[in-house]
Amino acid sequence: MNQPPYTPPESFQGPIAVFGCGLIGASLAAAWSAAGHTVWGCDRRDLTLLLDKGWIRRQVPPEDLPQAKVVVLALPPQGIVAALRRIPFRPGQLVTDTGSVKAPVEQAAKVLPDGVRFIGGHPLAGDTASGFEAARTDLFQGASWVLLPSPAGPARGFLEDRIRELGAEPLTCSARRHDRIVALTSHLPQLLSTALAAEIAALDDPLADRLLGGGGQQFLRLAASPYPLWRDILSLNHEAVTTSLNDLFARASQPVEAQQADFRAANQLLARLGASSRRS
Amino acid sequence: MNQPPYTPPESFQGPIAVFGCGLIGASLAAAWSAAGHTVWGCDRRDLTLLLDKGWIRRQVPPEDLPQAKVVVLALPPQGIVAALRRIPFRPGQLVTDTGSVKAPVEQAAKVLPDGVRFIGGHPLAGDTASGFEAARTDLFQGASWVLLPSPAGPARGFLEDRIRELGAEPLTCSARRHDRIVALTSHLPQLLSTALAAEIAALDDPLADRLLGGGGQQFLRLAASPYPLWRDILSLNHEAVTTSLNDLFARASQPVEAQQADFRAANQLLARLGASSRRS
Repeated sequence: MNQPPYTPPESFQGPIAVFGCGLIGASLAAAWSAAGHTVWGCDRRDLTLLLDKGWIRRQVPPEDLPQAKVVVLALPPQGIVAALRRIPFRPGQLVTDTGSVKAPVEQAAKVLPDGVRFIGGHPLAGDTASGFEAARTDLFQGASWVLLPSPAGPARGFLEDRIRELGAEPLTCSARRHDRIVALTSHLPQLLSTALAAEIAALDDPLADRLLGGGGQQFLRLAASPYPLWRDILSLNHEAVTTSLNDLFARASQPVEAQQADFRAANQLLARLGASSRRS
Repeated sequence: MNQPPYTPPESFQGPIAVFGCGLIGASLAAAWSAAGHTVWGCDRRDLTLLLDKGWIRRQVPPEDLPQAKVVVLALPPQGIVAALRRIPFRPGQLVTDTGSVKAPVEQAAKVLPDGVRFIGGHPLAGDTASGFEAARTDLFQGASWVLLPSPAGPARGFLEDRIRELGAEPLTCSARRHDRIVALTSHLPQLLSTALAAEIAALDDPLADRLLGGGGQQFLRLAASPYPLWRDILSLNHEAVTTSLNDLFARASQPVEAQQADFRAANQLLARLGASSRRS
């Protein structure tokens, strides 16, 4: 397209550094470099593939992150917390993250020096596939992207613009409210899908795979997700996940007759979701 | 295709009556009539639409079912049990069913007169959509179709041929083993998907729908299923479902570190399923 090259506001002129070039980080690098931004990649892995694709301009070590104008921590949640504690971010930098649990990140960010603009974030995007090999520029298309509350100003405006540039929609939500909702909408589905797949495997019955219909297979698809990421998420959001699991178990244990109201509520939710996915 | 018209073995020459023309029954009628069989439909609803499509030759009342050579009970499980008790099936008839719970059906079939060949069945096919409006000839393509054990002979051979004609694969499994497996592979996914959707709805938070990513949406897709069918299934398989639910809850409640083995088992199961669905 013949659009003029993007000119960021003076204060954030400079490279966007993406720390953690897995599925999320590499997809960000791909989409933002395609939009004309200078992107640095930082990862323990060799990023020659991303350099060759033009998704990043340089591979930098963590020591160079304080030189970037904008730093995106696209690491597993424990890595985000560790990075906030260890990297000497500088006043004037905009720092954000993509972690699926927000309260511990918000807490860790309190150690940042005055003048570092930290805005926690979480794109509701992902895949059971992981690593930069699975990255794609349209990963965030149509996704919601939670941002923690922060003062209005150029940092937030810049970040919201970058999110919209990815085809995603920024929305504001407190860390506590976010963590409680995603315990139900994301963390329990993962936990239950994995546990059910493990129960089926434990049956050790050669007919079990054959007696898995289309609905069961869809339900189990999340069970392909990698443990290391989910270990972080499930342990950092342990309280909300445990509460939600107990509530869910109580609900599912009700007598069948009492579940009619749940089926009604569930049918309504699904109809609403079907309508909204048709809209998008 | 220029194949000669199908000639069934002498003993099962005659119409196939499908009792219950919802998604499953109407899809059977459509596929078998397309294969050249004479199909009767029996349903409380008016079946003019199925007559017009040529999927059934006649709509018959339940009183006429003893006149058919083959009767397929494609009703919700409680309806199958009731039909086995009430309809005066005749010696020489082949009677089968498509119910998702097999032990109560096997038990109910004990009242049939000597000489009625009853072979319980369960196609692992379905959809959250219901009713003959959702029927399609390829519903059973690639599906497993459980048959309860029965003596080898023309009745079983005829039924297995009809199942293969639908593109499905007949396999033999005892009622108890079937009910235990599908509690995990089908009934728990439905129960948990519904309960989770109801929990999300109960949050009553306008952001909840927005914080539902692709994985969570897939997990919840079964929550669109209708209550009346599942009330029957969950109550008839109550013991196996309750045991499985308790086991699953115990597994999901383990400390995160203990779940590494579950993730490994789940990842392996999913890789195997992925491989087998690519094969089909």
